[in-house]
Amino acid sequence: MKETRYDRGLRKISEIDGKAGEQVVESLSDIAPDFARYLIEFPFGDIYSRPGLDLKSREIATISALTALGNAQPQLKVHIRAALNVGCSEGEILEVIMQMAVYAGFPAALNGLFAAKEVFAEDTP
Amino acid sequence: MKETRYDRGLRKISEIDGKAGEQVVESLSDIAPDFARYLIEFPFGDIYSRPGLDLKSREIATISALTALGNAQPQLKVHIRAALNVGCSEGEILEVIMQMAVYAGFPAALNGLFAAKEVFAEDTP
Amino acid sequence: MKETRYDRGLRKISEIDGKAGEQVVESLSDIAPDFARYLIEFPFGDIYSRPGLDLKSREIATISALTALGNAQPQLKVHIRAALNVGCSEGEILEVIMQMAVYAGFPAALNGLFAAKEVFAEDTP
Amino acid sequence: MKETRYDRGLRKISEIDGKAGEQVVESLSDIAPDFARYLIEFPFGDIYSRPGLDLKSREIATISALTALGNAQPQLKVHIRAALNVGCSEGEILEVIMQMAVYAGFPAALNGLFAAKEVFAEDTP
Amino acid sequence: MKETRYDRGLRKISEIDGKAGEQVVESLSDIAPDFARYLIEFPFGDIYSRPGLDLKSREIATISALTALGNAQPQLKVHIRAALNVGCSEGEILEVIMQMAVYAGFPAALNGLFAAKEVFAEDTP
Amino acid sequence: MKETRYDRGLRKISEIDGKAGEQVVESLSDIAPDFARYLIEFPFGDIYSRPGLDLKSREIATISALTALGNAQPQLKVHIRAALNVGCSEGEILEVIMQMAVYAGFPAALNGLFAAKEVFAEDTP
Repeated sequence: MKETRYDRGLRKISEIDGKAGEQVVESLSDIAPDFARYLIEFPFGDIYSRPGLDLKSREIATISALTALGNAQPQLKVHIRAALNVGCSEGEILEVIMQMAVYAGFPAALNGLFAAKEVFAEDTP
Repeated sequence: MKETRYDRGLRKISEIDGKAGEQVVESLSDIAPDFARYLIEFPFGDIYSRPGLDLKSREIATISALTALGNAQPQLKVHIRAALNVGCSEGEILEVIMQMAVYAGFPAALNGLFAAKEVFAEDTP
Repeated sequence: MKETRYDRGLRKISEIDGKAGEQVVESLSDIAPDFARYLIEFPFGDIYSRPGLDLKSREIATISALTALGNAQPQLKVHIRAALNVGCSEGEILEVIMQMAVYAGFPAALNGLFAAKEVFAEDTP
Repeated sequence: MKETRYDRGLRKISEIDGKAGEQVVESLSDIAPDFARYLIEFPFGDIYSRPGLDLKSREIATISALTALGNAQPQLKVHIRAALNVGCSEGEILEVIMQMAVYAGFPAALNGLFAAKEVFAEDTP
Repeated sequence: MKETRYDRGLRKISEIDGKAGEQVVESLSDIAPDFARYLIEFPFGDIYSRPGLDLKSREIATISALTALGNAQPQLKVHIRAALNVGCSEGEILEVIMQMAVYAGFPAALNGLFAAKEVFAEDTP
Repeated sequence: MKETRYDRGLRKISEIDGKAGEQVVESLSDIAPDFARYLIEFPFGDIYSRPGLDLKSREIATISALTALGNAQPQLKVHIRAALNVGCSEGEILEVIMQMAVYAGFPAALNGLFAAKEVFAEDTP
């Protein structure tokens, strides 16, 4: 029996984000449950599940975009955690964010670094 | 004798971009030669020359950011060529751009794909 | 006697936003009272007062733009309330915000949905 | 037998865009056929096919977002045509674009108006 | 007799932009003549006519914003010409654009410099 | 003996920002000390130290860009303080921010005005 896009997405988001996927689905359950479903199905069931690019590279791509756009701090933090989960080192994540100074300016990079600092601090036992 | 930031940047940009670096320096030579120097020194002499992240990952980060921001098509094309130069496959580049549909919308991803299509076509003998 | 742009704008903003218009004028009164006047005159006295597009459609347009731009959460909330005031249902507002996932990415849509969730919660008696 | 998301999307995009959908699928066929499929499935099969908001309002939302973001002129033109197809008048489209001066500035609105001017001119027999 | 906002705006735009104001009004005359009027009235009749900031500083502000946003090249060129008209030197304009590398990234600054290069070339007899 | 870029940048940032420069360097010291160094060297050692544009004009340029981009409120506040330090009046700063309504929309200008209001309030003894 073929796995549905939703099931594949759920498996992928839990591989990448741990509990963050469940939390966002939960937070949308009363207001926009269909959107929660789309979020599992398209980004995670379709895109992140594709072969052809490893998950480390996918998280580098996402952190770059969210740092450069600069208007999605909660999602940036989720993906900094995700990058750690899929094997990026803290140092690699910081390199990606610093590089964004070149493409989106120093304030965007600074705000990305402060987001990383918060995430890394949470993870220190 | 220590290599200057400019010399290190020039070496790095030529490793990454082939002739594109020279061309942009040339295009700025009459109007803003100091900016051409900064462009060699900071992005390439400082950032791309850092250890801690391989060049393939750096180009993935740049293509993501430029696709997501959507207002720098000439530079996106330069970095699609650069990504090919440093070892990304066409398929990997397309994966990165497609993923941007999730973070910056379908039009940003579409315009990135069309940029890639143009670059890949140039390279076909 | 012809109504001034300011008076027409004040009437329109109070039709659309209830008390929100007064509050923003008040919040600017010490620092930039001229800007408060422009805000009444141009957006509300000139644009929202134009025939040719109903207020429901105007609020749909505004919610779309503010969700997509993603850097004006306080104004987005004001216009989610305004949309309810001029006859949009909660469901219609959520449809508009969800659709922005296609044009500005999932994080922009998510942040818009959370803004709507807060506004709808305030309104529940 | 249940209609697939792809079939539903294809039916919807052809209702909205006429031939534009086919053209974009065609233009992606050599480089990213999977992305062409996603473009039919998610925006058109999932989002535009939802009940709860009429197509006129959906096109108003899209024109607003693309005018405000300002980095997707080809897609803006496609959706100006689409808005005409689903029953928006030229006047209503212009009202939406003009309103964007308030939320994204006068240059964004001006560039949107010039896009509309081009589209309207094509349609004049 | 008090000068209208329109007349004041027209006087100001012609002081700043020479013929560019007339041209944009003309280009909108068939499609959105009201918007042409707003463009004269609000930006030029209200804002640029205010005391409290000299025109050189106002053009520096505008060139910065348009370079940083990066999605309004035609308007950026108009304001590079305007800056020259109100007394900015070519060198000062280039300084402003180069500085944007810090706040919006190198591609935004590069594209601004190329816009300036085109404008300066036109003006050379 | 020639002053290094770092020393020149440190001197310049302290002339412009007072203690803000030190604070940002301090806040990066554990996570990205190299980025703190780049921040002193490139923006302040290279760009702000250039002749050819006075510091008042440079701060006007920066406030414009950060207000227009709208995703860097902490940095906007730093530069509103900086503008006061280098000789801009509160009135001039407000003029610059209000003008951004024309180029980036009313919400961007409003959020800039509220940032200025907070900074001016801190400075009142």
